[in-house]
Amino acid sequence: MSKIMNLLDRLFPICRSITGDGVRKTLDILDEIAPIKQKEYPTGMGCFDWTIPKEWNINDAYIKNSQGEKIVDFNESNLHVLGYSTPVHKNLSKEELMGHIYTNPEMPDAIPYLTSYYEERWGFCVEHNRLEEFEDDQYEVSIDSTLEDGYLTIGEGYIEGTSDKEILLSTYICHPSMANNELSGPIVQTYLYKYLLEKEDLKYNYRFLYLPETIGSIAYLSKNGEQLKEKLVAGYVITCIGDDAPFTYKKSRRGDTLADRAVLNVLENSNRDYEVLDWFPTGSDERQYCSLGFNLPVGSLMRSMYGTYDEYHTSLDNKDFISESALKESIKTYLDVIETMELNDTYTTDHKFCEPKLDKYGLYPTLGSQKENEDRVKEIMHLWAYADGENDIIDIANKLGVVANELDEALDKLINSGLLNPPSDK
Amino acid sequence: MSKIMNLLDRLFPICRSITGDGVRKTLDILDEIAPIKQKEYPTGMGCFDWTIPKEWNINDAYIKNSQGEKIVDFNESNLHVLGYSTPVHKNLSKEELMGHIYTNPEMPDAIPYLTSYYEERWGFCVEHNRLEEFEDDQYEVSIDSTLEDGYLTIGEGYIEGTSDKEILLSTYICHPSMANNELSGPIVQTYLYKYLLEKEDLKYNYRFLYLPETIGSIAYLSKNGEQLKEKLVAGYVITCIGDDAPFTYKKSRRGDTLADRAVLNVLENSNRDYEVLDWFPTGSDERQYCSLGFNLPVGSLMRSMYGTYDEYHTSLDNKDFISESALKESIKTYLDVIETMELNDTYTTDHKFCEPKLDKYGLYPTLGSQKENEDRVKEIMHLWAYADGENDIIDIANKLGVVANELDEALDKLINSGLLNPPSDK
Amino acid sequence: MSKIMNLLDRLFPICRSITGDGVRKTLDILDEIAPIKQKEYPTGMGCFDWTIPKEWNINDAYIKNSQGEKIVDFNESNLHVLGYSTPVHKNLSKEELMGHIYTNPEMPDAIPYLTSYYEERWGFCVEHNRLEEFEDDQYEVSIDSTLEDGYLTIGEGYIEGTSDKEILLSTYICHPSMANNELSGPIVQTYLYKYLLEKEDLKYNYRFLYLPETIGSIAYLSKNGEQLKEKLVAGYVITCIGDDAPFTYKKSRRGDTLADRAVLNVLENSNRDYEVLDWFPTGSDERQYCSLGFNLPVGSLMRSMYGTYDEYHTSLDNKDFISESALKESIKTYLDVIETMELNDTYTTDHKFCEPKLDKYGLYPTLGSQKENEDRVKEIMHLWAYADGENDIIDIANKLGVVANELDEALDKLINSGLLNPPSDK
Repeated sequence: MSKIMNLLDRLFPICRSITGDGVRKTLDILDEIAPIKQKEYPTGMGCFDWTIPKEWNINDAYIKNSQGEKIVDFNESNLHVLGYSTPVHKNLSKEELMGHIYTNPEMPDAIPYLTSYYEERWGFCVEHNRLEEFEDDQYEVSIDSTLEDGYLTIGEGYIEGTSDKEILLSTYICHPSMANNELSGPIVQTYLYKYLLEKEDLKYNYRFLYLPETIGSIAYLSKNGEQLKEKLVAGYVITCIGDDAPFTYKKSRRGDTLADRAVLNVLENSNRDYEVLDWFPTGSDERQYCSLGFNLPVGSLMRSMYGTYDEYHTSLDNKDFISESALKESIKTYLDVIETMELNDTYTTDHKFCEPKLDKYGLYPTLGSQKENEDRVKEIMHLWAYADGENDIIDIANKLGVVANELDEALDKLINSGLLNPPSDK
Repeated sequence: MSKIMNLLDRLFPICRSITGDGVRKTLDILDEIAPIKQKEYPTGMGCFDWTIPKEWNINDAYIKNSQGEKIVDFNESNLHVLGYSTPVHKNLSKEELMGHIYTNPEMPDAIPYLTSYYEERWGFCVEHNRLEEFEDDQYEVSIDSTLEDGYLTIGEGYIEGTSDKEILLSTYICHPSMANNELSGPIVQTYLYKYLLEKEDLKYNYRFLYLPETIGSIAYLSKNGEQLKEKLVAGYVITCIGDDAPFTYKKSRRGDTLADRAVLNVLENSNRDYEVLDWFPTGSDERQYCSLGFNLPVGSLMRSMYGTYDEYHTSLDNKDFISESALKESIKTYLDVIETMELNDTYTTDHKFCEPKLDKYGLYPTLGSQKENEDRVKEIMHLWAYADGENDIIDIANKLGVVANELDEALDKLINSGLLNPPSDK
Repeated sequence: MSKIMNLLDRLFPICRSITGDGVRKTLDILDEIAPIKQKEYPTGMGCFDWTIPKEWNINDAYIKNSQGEKIVDFNESNLHVLGYSTPVHKNLSKEELMGHIYTNPEMPDAIPYLTSYYEERWGFCVEHNRLEEFEDDQYEVSIDSTLEDGYLTIGEGYIEGTSDKEILLSTYICHPSMANNELSGPIVQTYLYKYLLEKEDLKYNYRFLYLPETIGSIAYLSKNGEQLKEKLVAGYVITCIGDDAPFTYKKSRRGDTLADRAVLNVLENSNRDYEVLDWFPTGSDERQYCSLGFNLPVGSLMRSMYGTYDEYHTSLDNKDFISESALKESIKTYLDVIETMELNDTYTTDHKFCEPKLDKYGLYPTLGSQKENEDRVKEIMHLWAYADGENDIIDIANKLGVVANELDEALDKLINSGLLNPPSDK
């Protein structure tokens, strides 16, 4: 089994929520791939309009029928427990039990995923088609959970670059056993992190956040938002990125940031189908990153987006729903996007009046009218012709219809020939 | 018979022209629905490049053949007389008569509608297919009309709102017995006027003009144009609005005024087919309202537009060409547009940094991940997220794909919760 | 035979290159149609990053087999010699010969067109399918050419207009016997020149350049570029304009110059298929005209563009590939474009408040509601309504959906009526 699928196998059974040991265990495992520092925010800490809730942990849970048989068992699927359920252990009537059972009639064979973070409740989530199995009058329910003062845990990784500008990758680690939403996110982000660690001379600083969704990004922004506002040039929320569907890109609120332009250059010039959506204020943590006060340049490159596929937020969003090849293509695509941003810059030339005699610089074949080398000459000519200090490499790549990072060789040649001035520090 | 069709029946037979008693009688009848004040401009009054013409009235007209039989009779259709025909009563040869007969060979069964306001003529308009009935050598013609110094009459209604800004509704009342162009216009406008009178707390002032086309709006603008320029935020020329065809919207000259944006929001999000046309300098009174010196924000929401349907300006543009249901849908649509403009504003929020915790305000379900209330939460989130003082409610409704006036409840809730600041007076 | 095809017949056999007597002879023949002044730049003259090369001339060339039979003969096609081949006369082995033979396997029945201007070489270009005829072991090759200090020759024509602004027409005269690329260019340009000479009162000055491609325009710009920068309002590189394919327009680098707007008005409103390309830095002399430092308003209206058709740069781009009717339509289209630019201007009106009473000026029928004269009234109304000093005649023609030069009569009438102010000198 490949390392990436082995990682998935290890992370999948863990019962994560917005707080608790499942989060810590998940971060510990990811830390084996790339160094992730855990930070904790205490219960009761205020963050903007929100407050860090109590920490929730769970050991076991079940429903037994009157014969004492476990008919619903947390050990079979942690989705069976309503997230953040308060502890309970008692016998009760069928009627009372039914007030605590949640199903999704539209997906009758799936266990729905439900939570009650901010109102104390207990409950079980069951396949709608199994309701008929509840034939007895009396049941025993047990949820062996704790809801106490504690901490909300986040993970953070960092790679230092040569400039003072930063790129943010953010994913979430608060969902129990589901694959596309959410484990594809932490897995893709962590491998991306690992591969970037291997690169030298990165221009940008890279920050990798692993947060419980919503409350995690709000807490993080309450501490670090102003710093991000100052340094961030691009960012992505990495989620729903493991299935075989075409890519979906949700733009940043501003819509024309480096984050948006780099992804669109890669998608448009890769012969893929893809969909582009304008930013909207529902979704994942880009709701917070792009909120009015921050308005950070953060988009989200996904595959089957949250809320758009039937298996979403059910037990059918399982390991079969995603694939190793899709995960790897997603990692590769995010890497292409990052290379594009690393490469991107505007250039100027001192050869403004008529084209340089390229053969003098070894950049043009001496035998005219041959079709060989046409593409390379085209690249060279475009990079020179648009070295106006306004068009950047992404613009030029878009004119050429290529992914920007394919221009790296031609760019080096032009700089080495003195035909392009190296970019000034900005 | 419904009130609206009864109104049509009463107005249809009246012989209107740009001046004369037909105009006054029409305004008297409409005044029964909503108060319309008549104003008169005297013959000879200058208005820009134009002069108020003599007043024209007509009692009767006919052509008799040599047996004394009326073969063309004003009482059968007032379209038979060339508009503004000078009086005549004489016997004449067929050849001489034919110099005064107008037909439309392209619509051979219809009486064409023709006028000669600014050059003195007399004439009869006849179905092209009836020319063969003119077999005699001698005829008697009579047009019992007067063309004398008098007045040009216009009608005006007004509803006072709470702001000092104004919305203009303008229609024309100068065509004889034709239904889509023009009686649909005065009927729709007057019912709109009636329904707006029933509303409380209108933000805008509403002005309703009933004018003879062209000369009427030029005369009105010569007296009131500067005031309109100062106060008008939107306006519509209401014409050709009674048949069952899809809506056609002709934009204001500026193209992006409140008038344009409100109509387009309503049409785009109502699952209707519709057509949008850029402003052009032929057409109806928007020619004057949008002339360079005024350039008022006036568009025109129509159905089958003037000049585009075969029955236009013929006796076949009759009561069968329009329908009660179309008239009512037109009134409803103009009301939607007006509600959209009334509702529209830009908002700001003091919750700029991360989203407000909506459940604290009763605006979010406490049980996470449920599909219920999704649309309402989406509305709430959009209204909050774009409360940037720049996007207005129409912009936000367009992002949501809804008609703006559907957002009124969500908007009230957000204002009442303190999550949106009430709009400052502007 | 028509004059235009006779001209083609006379020019076709001449062996042109970027220097030499072929260029001079070509300009001499074109000078019979319209006066063309020859200018010469000496070998060694620097021009920006380039230097004028030695002058190349050729008398004869052949390859003989071991029986002394000419198997490749310059007199059959001047394409057989690699352009700028150095002189050679010797016996050599098949193996050595093959190092000097060029073919195009993708077009095996065509002689490819190749040159080596800037590296001294000799060679022959042969149909790929004829390689099998080279069965002998020994051959005699002869190229009776000279490559010596001399001159690069260009041609220039000029028509003086009433303003100080200039329009540039530029074509190239450096290709041996090929028809679409390039003889269609000099032929169309010279007839355009001839027809413009017959016109009176041209507003713009017209400059006609006949240049060896690339080095010719670079040399010209090194002497005259600053003057062109100051005076040029539009220009076109005329090339690949003789075949029957639909028009292709390559925009100027700026993309919205008078050059671009005039061509697009003509193409869009002429019921033709056509293609529009954004500027790109490969192609013909617009590479130099539009280089960053000059950025002149120069586009290129072509038919089958260089590099896009199989016959390009081969012996199959011959007289059969182009047609008299296509050449004539091309001339006519360039003339339409020029008339559009001559006519184009912005106007103002003193009748800004409501429309003028057009019948007072004889510009409107006195009988209302007739369909006659509708198009003329529409033209008049549009020209008046958009006389805002911002929309120019091309803008107005685009709104009307007509070629701008169709508006000349209506424009004259409005100016003569005093309804438009004559354009101020600019």
